[in-house]
This record gives sequence, C-alpha cells and structure tokens, in this order.
Amino acid sequence: MAAQCAELAARDAELLERRGTTIGPYSPLFYRTPRHFVHGEGVWLTDAFGRTYLDAYNNVPQVGHANPRVAAAVAEQIATHNVHTRYLHEGVVNYAEELLATFSPELDRVYFTNSGSESNDLALRIARHVSGNSGILTTDFSYHGNTLTLAAMTTGLDVSEPFGEHVRRFTIPDLDHAGGRGEPEVLAEALAQVAEAIASLQEAGHGLSAVLVDPSFSTEGLPRLPQGYLEGLAALVHDAGGLVIADEVQSGLGRLGWAWWGHQVTGLVPDLVTMGKPLGNGFPLGGVVTSQAVMDSFSSTNMYFNTFAGTPVASAAGRAVLAEVHERGLVQRAADLGERVRARLAEIEAEHPLVASAKGRGLFFGLELVDADGAPNPELAKAIVERLANEGILISRIGPHDSVLKIRPPLVITAEQLDVVVDTLSRALHEAAPLPVGAGA
Amino acid sequence: MAAQCAELAARDAELLERRGTTIGPYSPLFYRTPRHFVHGEGVWLTDAFGRTYLDAYNNVPQVGHANPRVAAAVAEQIATHNVHTRYLHEGVVNYAEELLATFSPELDRVYFTNSGSESNDLALRIARHVSGNSGILTTDFSYHGNTLTLAAMTTGLDVSEPFGEHVRRFTIPDLDHAGGRGEPEVLAEALAQVAEAIASLQEAGHGLSAVLVDPSFSTEGLPRLPQGYLEGLAALVHDAGGLVIADEVQSGLGRLGWAWWGHQVTGLVPDLVTMGKPLGNGFPLGGVVTSQAVMDSFSSTNMYFNTFAGTPVASAAGRAVLAEVHERGLVQRAADLGERVRARLAEIEAEHPLVASAKGRGLFFGLELVDADGAPNPELAKAIVERLANEGILISRIGPHDSVLKIRPPLVITAEQLDVVVDTLSRALHEAAPLPVGAGA
Repeated sequence: MAAQCAELAARDAELLERRGTTIGPYSPLFYRTPRHFVHGEGVWLTDAFGRTYLDAYNNVPQVGHANPRVAAAVAEQIATHNVHTRYLHEGVVNYAEELLATFSPELDRVYFTNSGSESNDLALRIARHVSGNSGILTTDFSYHGNTLTLAAMTTGLDVSEPFGEHVRRFTIPDLDHAGGRGEPEVLAEALAQVAEAIASLQEAGHGLSAVLVDPSFSTEGLPRLPQGYLEGLAALVHDAGGLVIADEVQSGLGRLGWAWWGHQVTGLVPDLVTMGKPLGNGFPLGGVVTSQAVMDSFSSTNMYFNTFAGTPVASAAGRAVLAEVHERGLVQRAADLGERVRARLAEIEAEHPLVASAKGRGLFFGLELVDADGAPNPELAKAIVERLANEGILISRIGPHDSVLKIRPPLVITAEQLDVVVDTLSRALHEAAPLPVGAGA
Repeated sequence: MAAQCAELAARDAELLERRGTTIGPYSPLFYRTPRHFVHGEGVWLTDAFGRTYLDAYNNVPQVGHANPRVAAAVAEQIATHNVHTRYLHEGVVNYAEELLATFSPELDRVYFTNSGSESNDLALRIARHVSGNSGILTTDFSYHGNTLTLAAMTTGLDVSEPFGEHVRRFTIPDLDHAGGRGEPEVLAEALAQVAEAIASLQEAGHGLSAVLVDPSFSTEGLPRLPQGYLEGLAALVHDAGGLVIADEVQSGLGRLGWAWWGHQVTGLVPDLVTMGKPLGNGFPLGGVVTSQAVMDSFSSTNMYFNTFAGTPVASAAGRAVLAEVHERGLVQRAADLGERVRARLAEIEAEHPLVASAKGRGLFFGLELVDADGAPNPELAKAIVERLANEGILISRIGPHDSVLKIRPPLVITAEQLDVVVDTLSRALHEAAPLPVGAGA
C-alpha cells in the first residue's frame, strides 16, 4: 500500500515536471500539494490516489461534475453535426430563446461567445460603439478576464499591461468596513467617488463608455452594500452617457439564489449582461445579452462573427444546463440552502473572535478572517483552506487581502453535504485559532 | 412530396425569423437561400430536406464532420471528469506534449485558449510585454479575430472601432499582380513599404511590438509572394525589436500540405504561433505556442489564467484530432491531393479567359476571376458559389474584391471527391461565362 502510494506520488511529481516544461511553471495550481483529479460526479472529485473530495469551491460545474445530462447532450450532438452558425440550426435558436427567457423582457438579444473573457471584451467593444466614448470605470479589486483590453483594467491580480489612461477605478463600499460611519454617509462617499472618476474621464476627453461590474462583487470580497448604491451607480453612469455591464460570470445562473441572474437579485439594472463559467458546465460557452436597440446599433455597422460560439454542440450543452437548473429547482434551492448556511456562518461569526463577518448569499459565501488586532488574516485563511483540503473538502479564499474564505459549491450540493462543510470549517477554525477560555457556546 | 417540401421550407422560414429575434438578423448566413444542416459525416453535410452536400469549404472540421474518434474522446472524457487546469491532469500534459512535438524544437511552450481570437489577442499582449513597445503591423486586407484589440487592426471587414493610432498597414505583394514589374522590384518595393510603416510607428513613439500575419495570407487572397519576402519581413520586424506572430488559424494543422504548420511550409520563422479553428475539429480550442524565454518573460510577471482552456475534455478533443491527422497521413495527403488539384486548376486557368490565376497550395485553393477587361469579377464569383451550392457543393469566395473562389475542404476529402468539385466548378465556369467560339481545348 505504502509502496503504491509512493509510486503514485512519484508519478504526480513527474507529471508536475512535464507540465512545467510544456504549459509552464507559472500556470497556477491550487493547494500546497497540487491535486490530481481523475473522476467527478455531482459534488465529488476523486484523485489519482482514489481519495474523494467534497467540492465546495468550483462554480463551473454548476449542475455537478460530469453531469450525465450535459454529457449525453454533448455526446449525441458532437456525433451528429457541429458547425459554425453561418447555417441555420434549430438547436442554436432554441437555446437562444430558452436562455433569453430567463432575462427581463427588454433584454431580448444574445451574442454567443466561448468564454467570460470574450463576453466582457465584446461588451466593452459594444459600449464604445453605442456611447461613442472610450472611458471605462472598474472597481479597485477586480478581474474580468484575460484579453489585452481587460488586462488594461485589471486591478485584482498581477499584470504587466499598463493601467489604461482611459480607465478609472473606484472602491465598492462595504458596511462591514464602515469604520463607524453611518450607512447614508458611506453611500454618499461611495457615489461621490464614482462621480469624481466620471468627471476625471470627461476632463481627459475620454468620456464614459461603460462601468463593468460583477453584481455581487465577488472578487472584491462580497461587500455588504449600502441601500441604493447600485441604483445610484447606474444613474451616474447613464447620466454620463455610459452603459452598465453586469458581469455574471461568477454571480449568474442561479448562483445567488432567488433569481436566475445576480443583477436580478441585487437590483442592478444593466444594459449588457455578460456570461461565462457555468453556462456550459465546463463546455466552453459564454454570451452577451442585451436589448434589440443595442444590437441594432452595434451589429448594423460591425460584422461580428465567432466561429466556435453557439454551435449546435455548445447549444446542446447550454440547453442541458438550463434544463437541469429548471427541473431540479436549483435557483430556489440555492436560496433555501443559502439561508441555512448563512445562519450557521452567522453563528460562527458571533462565537469566533477571528471571524470578522459572514458574507454572501445564495450559494456564494465569504467568511472574513482577521487577527487579534482586527487586521486581515490571510495566513489563517490559507491555513484553513489547506486544512480543509487535507480533510477532503475544497474551498478557496478571495478579497483584496486574500483573507476571505470562499465557499461556492456546485448548486447540486445537498443540505447534509453543506452541513459537513460548515461543521468541518467550524472545527478547523477552532483548532487553528483556539477560542479564549470561557468564550464561545 | 411537394407538400412536404413546402412544409419544410415554411419551417426554415420560421426558424430564420426566430433566429432574427434572438441572435439577430446581422449574424451572417451563407448563400442566398440559407442552408439548414442537421447531419454531418466526413465531407458530407445533410440538410433538413434530406439533401446531401459535398463540403469543400469548411476548415473547422479538418478531420471530417462529426469525426467519430473526436466524438468518442469528448463523450468519454465529459462523462468522466472536466475541470480547469488548476489541478493536475495527465491528458492536458499529454496533449501539450503531442502538440508541441509538431513544432520546431525552439517553440516548446504552449498557452491554451478557447478560440483563434483569444489566441491572437494573447499573442499581441505577450508581444507588448516582451518588446516593451505598442506598435502593430497588419496587412491591408486581413482579419485576425473579434476582440476589441483585434477590431482596432481589422482591415478585411467592417468594424466601427477606429483603426488604432498604434497600427500601420502594409500590402502583401502578389506576383500575379505585378503589373509588369520583375520579381526583385516587387520584393524591394514591398519591403520598403514595411520599413516605412515601422519608421512611422517609431516616429510616433509607439515602436514596434509585433507583426501579425497568416503565413499563407488567405484572407488577402492567397498571393504569390516574391522569393525572400517572408525572410525580409521577419528581419525588418526583428531589427525594430518586434516579434513575429504567425496566425495559423486558417493555414495550420496540415492545411497547406508538406508540414504541420503554415509557417513551416512558407518559411516564415515566428516567435509566436497562434491556433484556432481546426484544433478541436469544432470543440472550442485554440492556443499560442512560443519559446520558453518568451513564456518566462511574460508569465513571470503576468498571472494568466483561462478557465475553459486546455481542460481534460478540450485536451481529449485536441488529442483525437492530432491522432487522426497522424494516423491517416493527412498532412502528406493534403500535399499530394493539392498537387493534383493545382494541376487541374492550372488547366482551367489556361483555358478560361475569365480565370486570371489559380492560387494556393495543399488543400487551400483560390481561383481568381476577372471580367473581360481583366478587372476583379465578384459577380461571377458569387454566381459560381451559388451555382455550386445548388449543385450540392459548398465553396466560398475571398480576397479584397471577393473575386477569388475559395476551396478549402476537410482534409479527409478523397481524390475522387476533389475531382467532382473541380469538374463541377469547370462546368459551372463554362456555363456561366461561355468561352469564345474556338477557344479552349
């Protein structure tokens, strides 16, 4: 047994070496000891050693790893017919209709793409055309994709591309970090910062083409917004002639519970909605949803075509995902299970001095960790993430200081499985950073 | 029968209408009467009426429509395990190694992407970083993808994005359009134009980051280059501190015969190679191949990650495609069949006054059509394309004037099938534009 394990470990080491000399040593791998998964099913991932992990992190397999319905739909269509959309195909139109049915009626047109990056890049391109302006607003800790245009507005990870002269950043307010200020004051300050950024773009001659935001601000650490912030942000952008782009790559397709899309849950009213990660449950598929007027403006003067996007096979994958979310009631489930977990996380927050706040909604949670002085505690977050991985549970961390635990399971997770995640997390927190004697329950 | 046909035609009309109100009326469709394909196999496509077409146009299904080996590989992997590359996976590394084995030894690193657009955008981003410059050279009738960065350098189709201040265009020389000048003169003039474009970028303070070219210049109309042009172009770019990017989206994976990649056939020596269309035979898959030094420079300072790219399923598709090309000897077949077709096209050129030149190599051909005065003849090209579609053969047209017939079948086409294409084409040309009495064979 031990010899077998050693052999498997040696094989992983060799694989890591081969990976380093082909796709390179920079391509990031999760965890101190990289995991080598060979099998997936629902929320479960099995590694090469035969060990099974409960996945409470991955949001691409929204309807479960290796979902059989998605797999069967792709298998059938790819063996039958797959070509670009310059010919008619019923499956493609069916998918477009079924996807658009999850949006409010004024958002009634869709461009298909192959990824969230392509979606955000296209939305910015459309906004430049429609507004006639070039300026962009982005938040001060965000990531919206890997194209050159998106790299020039990336604030949440390292890029060498210079920050664009046509880009201004602003800070998303968080009532959990209000520093004693009241909600109206936080709101006013945050909107004043947006207005200032817009004025700066106008003075520099760029004008405003768009603000690009994730409606739940997940990379930013799932902040708790003051009432009226999103409405105020959208109004300032529209007053300046810009468009509001909701990046639903992380917050979409039922992730936040209650509604299909994050903007519907949080109250942001967008002109363009971009989609990626969960749309094809791992089949490369993204899209941009907008109004007929915006499509008419852009596409009547731009020959936009995307070879792989919205093919019969991509559409088969997308339709199977929509059917799973519908028929298994995953949107409402995310809401119900989310409430249950939030209550548990609130208990942990109340009882554990190093937990500053429980954040998020639906099946997207954050648990903000601090040290004894209340400062961000990325070391503890890292220790907890590694500890849980060693116990067979996958989570991660986010936020400007990497100090917010990120819990974001496939939507097919059950209440019992979520209890295991929270129980293990609670135990890990207590053991990694013991409560003072006499404290807690 | 007639009633059934009418019903099917009415259904297609309804589908077209539904398409127009979802993905929009602008999304281009081929042919005067759009085709509605429901089944594919090898070079054959079958439409909703049950009519079968010989596909001599599509280059995405390089190893044949609905290739069974690719379909089986995707079906097996998607039912087993599919997740991003932040975990180890043997299939991904195997694919990277097998793909890199088709390149010269100094091109030994690969970034996976989801499309040709993502590949070209990433290559430009890398070139900006490595060169420290921002200027770009592009040809005067080209298309390299749909991102905002690529739109700002698009010269071959309509975009509203203003042509970039950091971009200069130059003309690819064509000995078939030398206007009486000799080859050395054509070469000198063409290279002088490149040198001038570089000087202009330098004077404007942009410097040169890259030239981005398709090694066979397919969108430009498959020009016949003067000897030494590609070497001269690369030397000028390198002297200015720029990188050479070979866009293999159209010319790669055996398309040109003789070698795996277009640059290996034409003699262009690139620093970066970008791939798309045929790589996954319709599964969204692209990549950028480069040297270890370039990857080290870019990735050590840029956190580049791409969620869908190079997943276990994408790699399974890519490996199946490589295996098909290898085992069926498609690279050499493209060369052999290409020679045969070129000889036939040369005969057509010799005998038909409205055929100005036969162009291309491997399984990528152009037939340049002119009118009685020798001017480009897009009307005739369109008539021939439509005529062939009505006879059950799919081809298209390209070039700055849309006057070059484009023939670019899946590589699995047979000699007999190619004969049918050329025979039908020859007949169509004679019937559409009869030879003068006494002319021809």
